[in-house]
Amino acid sequence: MTEAPKWVYLFREGEGDMRDLLGGKGAGLSEMTQARLPVPPGFTITTEACKSYYESSMVFPDGLWNQTLVGIREIEETTGKYFGSNNNPLLVSVRSGAAVSMPGMMDTVLNLGLNDTTVQGLSNGVGGKRFAYDSYRRFIQLFGKVVLGIASEGFDEIFDCQKRQADAVNDTDLSQEDLQLIVQLFQDLVFSQTGKNFPQDPYEQLQLAIKSVFASWNGRRAVDYRNFYNIPHNLGTAVNVVAMVFGNMDENSGTGVAFTRNPSDGSKILYGEYLISAQGEDVVAGVRTPQDIEHLREIDANLYGQLEEIAFRLESTYKDAQDIEFTVEQGTLYILQTRSAKRTAQAAVKMAVDMVQENLITKDEALLRIEPDQINQLLLPRFEDKSRSEAAAAGDLLATGLNASPGAASGKAVFDPDRAATLASQGENVILVRTETNPDDVHGMLVARGVLTARGGATSHAAVVARGLGKPCVAGCNDLLVDYDTRTCTIGGVLVEEMTDISIDGTTGEIFIGNLPTVEANFAEETDLNTLLDWADAVRILGVWANADTPEDAERGLKFGAEGIGLCRTEHMFFSDNRLPIVRQMILAAPGAAELDDWFRDIQEKSEAKSLSESEIEKQREKQQAALSVSLDAKRYYDSLDKLWEFQTNDFKAIMKVMTGKPVIIRLLDPPLHEFLPRYDELLRNVMELRISAAESDELKAQGDLLATVDNLRETNPMLGLRGCRLGLMYGAINEMQVRAIFTAACQLKREGFDPRPEIMVPIVGHYKELEAVNHILEKVARLVQDEQGIDVPFKIGTMIELPRAALTADQIAKHADFFSFGTNDLTQTTFGISRDDEQKFLPKYLERGIFPENPFKTLDRDGVGALVRMGVEKGRSVKADLEIGICGEHGGDPSSIEFCHEVGLNYVSASPFRIIVARIAAAQAAIVLNK
Amino acid sequence: MTEAPKWVYLFREGEGDMRDLLGGKGAGLSEMTQARLPVPPGFTITTEACKSYYESSMVFPDGLWNQTLVGIREIEETTGKYFGSNNNPLLVSVRSGAAVSMPGMMDTVLNLGLNDTTVQGLSNGVGGKRFAYDSYRRFIQLFGKVVLGIASEGFDEIFDCQKRQADAVNDTDLSQEDLQLIVQLFQDLVFSQTGKNFPQDPYEQLQLAIKSVFASWNGRRAVDYRNFYNIPHNLGTAVNVVAMVFGNMDENSGTGVAFTRNPSDGSKILYGEYLISAQGEDVVAGVRTPQDIEHLREIDANLYGQLEEIAFRLESTYKDAQDIEFTVEQGTLYILQTRSAKRTAQAAVKMAVDMVQENLITKDEALLRIEPDQINQLLLPRFEDKSRSEAAAAGDLLATGLNASPGAASGKAVFDPDRAATLASQGENVILVRTETNPDDVHGMLVARGVLTARGGATSHAAVVARGLGKPCVAGCNDLLVDYDTRTCTIGGVLVEEMTDISIDGTTGEIFIGNLPTVEANFAEETDLNTLLDWADAVRILGVWANADTPEDAERGLKFGAEGIGLCRTEHMFFSDNRLPIVRQMILAAPGAAELDDWFRDIQEKSEAKSLSESEIEKQREKQQAALSVSLDAKRYYDSLDKLWEFQTNDFKAIMKVMTGKPVIIRLLDPPLHEFLPRYDELLRNVMELRISAAESDELKAQGDLLATVDNLRETNPMLGLRGCRLGLMYGAINEMQVRAIFTAACQLKREGFDPRPEIMVPIVGHYKELEAVNHILEKVARLVQDEQGIDVPFKIGTMIELPRAALTADQIAKHADFFSFGTNDLTQTTFGISRDDEQKFLPKYLERGIFPENPFKTLDRDGVGALVRMGVEKGRSVKADLEIGICGEHGGDPSSIEFCHEVGLNYVSASPFRIIVARIAAAQAAIVLNK
Repeated sequence: MTEAPKWVYLFREGEGDMRDLLGGKGAGLSEMTQARLPVPPGFTITTEACKSYYESSMVFPDGLWNQTLVGIREIEETTGKYFGSNNNPLLVSVRSGAAVSMPGMMDTVLNLGLNDTTVQGLSNGVGGKRFAYDSYRRFIQLFGKVVLGIASEGFDEIFDCQKRQADAVNDTDLSQEDLQLIVQLFQDLVFSQTGKNFPQDPYEQLQLAIKSVFASWNGRRAVDYRNFYNIPHNLGTAVNVVAMVFGNMDENSGTGVAFTRNPSDGSKILYGEYLISAQGEDVVAGVRTPQDIEHLREIDANLYGQLEEIAFRLESTYKDAQDIEFTVEQGTLYILQTRSAKRTAQAAVKMAVDMVQENLITKDEALLRIEPDQINQLLLPRFEDKSRSEAAAAGDLLATGLNASPGAASGKAVFDPDRAATLASQGENVILVRTETNPDDVHGMLVARGVLTARGGATSHAAVVARGLGKPCVAGCNDLLVDYDTRTCTIGGVLVEEMTDISIDGTTGEIFIGNLPTVEANFAEETDLNTLLDWADAVRILGVWANADTPEDAERGLKFGAEGIGLCRTEHMFFSDNRLPIVRQMILAAPGAAELDDWFRDIQEKSEAKSLSESEIEKQREKQQAALSVSLDAKRYYDSLDKLWEFQTNDFKAIMKVMTGKPVIIRLLDPPLHEFLPRYDELLRNVMELRISAAESDELKAQGDLLATVDNLRETNPMLGLRGCRLGLMYGAINEMQVRAIFTAACQLKREGFDPRPEIMVPIVGHYKELEAVNHILEKVARLVQDEQGIDVPFKIGTMIELPRAALTADQIAKHADFFSFGTNDLTQTTFGISRDDEQKFLPKYLERGIFPENPFKTLDRDGVGALVRMGVEKGRSVKADLEIGICGEHGGDPSSIEFCHEVGLNYVSASPFRIIVARIAAAQAAIVLNK
Repeated sequence: MTEAPKWVYLFREGEGDMRDLLGGKGAGLSEMTQARLPVPPGFTITTEACKSYYESSMVFPDGLWNQTLVGIREIEETTGKYFGSNNNPLLVSVRSGAAVSMPGMMDTVLNLGLNDTTVQGLSNGVGGKRFAYDSYRRFIQLFGKVVLGIASEGFDEIFDCQKRQADAVNDTDLSQEDLQLIVQLFQDLVFSQTGKNFPQDPYEQLQLAIKSVFASWNGRRAVDYRNFYNIPHNLGTAVNVVAMVFGNMDENSGTGVAFTRNPSDGSKILYGEYLISAQGEDVVAGVRTPQDIEHLREIDANLYGQLEEIAFRLESTYKDAQDIEFTVEQGTLYILQTRSAKRTAQAAVKMAVDMVQENLITKDEALLRIEPDQINQLLLPRFEDKSRSEAAAAGDLLATGLNASPGAASGKAVFDPDRAATLASQGENVILVRTETNPDDVHGMLVARGVLTARGGATSHAAVVARGLGKPCVAGCNDLLVDYDTRTCTIGGVLVEEMTDISIDGTTGEIFIGNLPTVEANFAEETDLNTLLDWADAVRILGVWANADTPEDAERGLKFGAEGIGLCRTEHMFFSDNRLPIVRQMILAAPGAAELDDWFRDIQEKSEAKSLSESEIEKQREKQQAALSVSLDAKRYYDSLDKLWEFQTNDFKAIMKVMTGKPVIIRLLDPPLHEFLPRYDELLRNVMELRISAAESDELKAQGDLLATVDNLRETNPMLGLRGCRLGLMYGAINEMQVRAIFTAACQLKREGFDPRPEIMVPIVGHYKELEAVNHILEKVARLVQDEQGIDVPFKIGTMIELPRAALTADQIAKHADFFSFGTNDLTQTTFGISRDDEQKFLPKYLERGIFPENPFKTLDRDGVGALVRMGVEKGRSVKADLEIGICGEHGGDPSSIEFCHEVGLNYVSASPFRIIVARIAAAQAAIVLNK
């Protein structure tokens, strides 16, 4: 035994910096113990023990049990109570506690050590018999659920039934006899469900509970949570065994949670909730709605002062807002846990800025305190004022609950997490409505637009998880009654069936019937956020640009601080109702016009190169005019291109006007042409149906022709087909039209006094000769338009690097490019050989099984795609040291990927407007961390 | 002028090694001139002049014309004839001549310098008037066609019409008056076609002819040819201006072509053809069928001796078989050109081996002499003896022509090259049947299975091109009459309409009606080839393995020298009629069975890891059996897998038996499952049609269900979807079945005394964790089967490297792999982002425009894909120095790609059985060239 590793640390042995070994909770308890805070005695079983347990096929490693027993002895000595004693029994809690906080995701057992004998011993103590049986019924239910795997509902049914029979409103109204009966009924339930008696041996209870906590590390909830937050699966959890203190002992007892700053808005006051005569689980699980912590001050100002003093001491120690669990046992305060407080984005920003102003942390530390992904919450939508007033006036405001997680959302009311998942996967907006939520509901919460509960406060499961997810939550709405059986609820007395539209406002707590339109937050008024972003801008090296296809997007990007447009997708301009028919006409005519078009270009080239005599050219031109006049396709082709040119000129003008003085990267048409046409399957169905209804008809013929064209254009692997620069090389007139529009727009703007800075981007280049060939046309047209208009416009021509070959030969390509922009969406597809359209068939399972550590379409894969990006940058700059290089894939808005972009020395990241502020913070963090 | 570059080299100034500057023909003429061989005087305009001409927009560069005139003066001095003289006129030929031989692809003009005046001067000379007008009519026709762009047919019609009117059988039967009339009619034709008189100024003629030769470098024929043979487009052509000598002067004159060795079989005798009273074009164009060169010996033994002596001297000088053009003018021999002789593969091999035995060249030189791609011709099919006899007996042997290019082929008779191209693109086997061919027919020849002509000898255009292409050709069949108007021909009097099946044997010259089955050549009897291959094996370092899916393929591979199987595609075993229904049943049941299957595997794992109690496992197993008994899908799934297991066991056994003692790399199932199902479109049509014909029916329901399944399985980009190892990770039982079959087969073989060496290859690995996860199953099953059978089988597990990410992270992957095999087909697809299924939409145009220098699916792209291969090898070996690395993409049989594989240090290339000998030669060449 002496040779066994140290698996168990008494609280007086551990240190605050042993998080990895003792978990967050254990390290905190040790640190507090040593700071002589009122922590109940206990010990921590290390995460190493958990890992060893898994490695040895679920057997306690040598020495663990003996060291556990030593720990129990120590608690016995400190408390003077004895484990299993029928006189003065020691009860313990067995709590999980991983290095990374996973609130509510793993198991905890309270009141362990009770059995039919020790409950008598407890009855003899100061708490008395009622308290003893209250503890016992709690223990059997929790142990039954957590360790023995019996569904809670069985216990709840018995409990609720007894409450009704006893005519009790609150749990505290139940008499000692009621509780004694409940204990008996609970034990019967255990026997009927497991075929065995409830285990009476406290040591057996302890062993089972520890194993159960170990096992909960790999429970579905915990695995889901870790997947969602990208937490490694091999850390294991520690187990804390702590002497019970009893908030449920009497009216002088209670339990609560205190935050050193308001986790919702960040203001610096003690914030939290307190529940008299209750155990901790009652608060966290939201079973009863607790009272504001101010209430404690009224009851016992001394105790409140003590709590306040300890709380702020802890904040100073940890230099961060704390979330503290405490229990009062007959007027004595115990601290059970402290940890960094989860917080809303708004609170996080305010806390960070305040703490800098309080000289608690530096600006860099403040920036590092922010979870960039979370900051997006600040831009969460809220309901339109007008609609809200109208809805209220119309009586659509059904009720108000607790504003548990900010933001507003509308959607179909759904009462079951599985159903929420199904409906969401079908594209429905869903609001999950539950009496209360628990960890089994997380998959439903992940997909819902918002969460509404009838019970639970600001620290209830629903509230904590929703805040973490950045989703609106209204909790503890007393006017909500959910009936799971009929899939209905009433809100403020109004019956709401499944799939009825409701709207919830997590910032105000209001619940409306109907679908209220939402508007964005007012960014300019977010003073703290803007302060923080100013700090970020001062340290970051990466530029932050926006992906924007419309002037509205561009304005939004500017508002959030974009320094340029990194990607303007011209094809998105082709889909509006008034343009699509023209686009389709162009596409249908293109193949028929292509040869003529090539011929035109060929003669033009020859004429310019003077490689044909003038008379010969004249003759050719006459022939061409004759050919053109008889080619219906060519006429249609050029007509539709002319019309598109007008549209596009206005498009580009509007965007470059908004962005005056800043670069605007316009990507030439990229997607396969058949994306603009009706789907083949639909057409086939139409044609077959028309054949049934009419033998021959004009429509049948038209549809049949269209079907043939679509059949001809469609591709086996469109992702790897005729798209990007390949389109421009096959149908040169399309590129010409776009470039003519860009320069017409730029010249007009310049004449109007603006400063347009167009940069033309060629997509899907894999070989430098493609870029060379496209550039040849682009430069000629650019020159032509500028000459026509008599205006010079500074411009750049560059390329996407979105194919492995482009990165591998970036030195060759750089000779023909003024800039690179990494298209990491497509680069990830081709590097992995995974189509985003098809990934759903296996990627979820890959992530679940940990075959891919993270979704490479979300976070840039550094080993593979990243290696190509690095190579592209190095090779590109080896030829042109000042090559402008950015990224415009979705990774441009992902913090981890932004860090990588900083590391490899990109000039900027380009992200969707709503990710701009995320990118500014993440870029600053990268600069702080990597330049240290 | 003194400052202008030297654009013109007199033959006495040039050197034999100035090929790049003077072209092959010019360098040869210079060398022969200096060796005092009887070469007519002349000069060469350099390829640099041609390039400069193109660069300066089709204007003669400064100094070119003056230098040309100096050249003309020199010829005048040497010959005593004067250009444009109406007394004693000098005539010249103007001939193209690129650095790389492109026979017949560019233009030549003969008899230049004639006009209405100089023809009188020529008439006054020794040749007389008839000869003068014969030369003039030839000049007008050739100049008219080549320089003025007038179609030959117009001239031919006039000529043939006059022949008929004069009752002339041969051209030589025409009188001087006939010819004079023809000249007049030709001139009228020129005027009516161009609106101008035929140019009379010899200097204008010369200038136009030179420009025309320059222009022919970029003529369609030449560009097509260069694309086909991967010749760069920027080399330019030289122009040779040579004093005319006249084979058409009288009966003591003539022209011919002589080979120092038989270009058909390689035997060392003077071989060739001679045509009395003719000019060179008559032989090459196949207008008249010439006589064997032996005939010359009979006529003039002295002259023959002189030719023979010169020919073999040239062979000794160039150390290679020569193709010599000569002309006899009134008994005097002139050599007009010498070049390396084009030859059949058989001849190439024999010549190479013979020359080593003659001590003319070394073995290494002999190996380098072989065009590896061409050697495949030796394995060309021939007609089955039995079928041939039967066909002959049945009277299906219609005629016999000249055996101009070896091999046998059957197909539909087609009389027009455009139509041949169209039909071939629709998948038809086509035999191109023409009176004679000329360079405008090449596109039709490229797609035809074989070529049949009525006129022309062994050196006619049809014969030369067909040999170059490795296609069978029967030429000069006098019993063939083609009628282009009615799209019919008669062969030996039998009417053959377009699309009628015919069979031609280029080895024997026979022409059959009907479709004769072909058999392969007898490789073992090819003694010279085997000698050469032995030499190749002695120097090559790369191993050569075969891609083979069947025992027959494996045997063929072995026969040709394969040292292992580099790729056995198991999916090809799934398509046979008796298996496909089972495969489909498996696929349709798989999604429904997957969860159950995962559960089985999970419990199995837990049982092995003893992480569950035995009773718990027992309980789970009972539950599973219950679930299995009610799941129809699971039953079908396992049933079909059991059946497939039996099939696959036999498959693998048969292949490994053939390959006993040699490695056999078996790839696990790779393609997306929907490839085994009917196509969605077809099903949709069926269902729609069934709906029309019957309101409700069982078949409709079944087809509807199938449609739904296929819809569910089909993918947007199947190339990047659920395939390869992803399949095995989603449906583990399929992998298990295959591995079980491999090891069952191997154990049985070992028991029977064979030495099976299975290597299991996992496809589409992009992340090492995929391989790790698959290996986990594979190794377990492999162990299990060996334990069951009580036999140990040595085996390897490895992976394809066919995704960019696999190459980029090859070091991580190598830790889990015993071998790598580069799947360069898919690697090229993903690196370029080009789908092979869709490339036809743009790749042909890319190649035509030179955007891609060559088809990357044919020849490995060294800059992009090659960079990944190199990286994969280096990273893989950095972890495992002895990692076995090969290539199994189609590039494994391509000589240039094989050279690259040698260079980067692969262990072997794996090619289709018919490419094995190509690969052996190419591997030897790589070793010789790169290790120098």
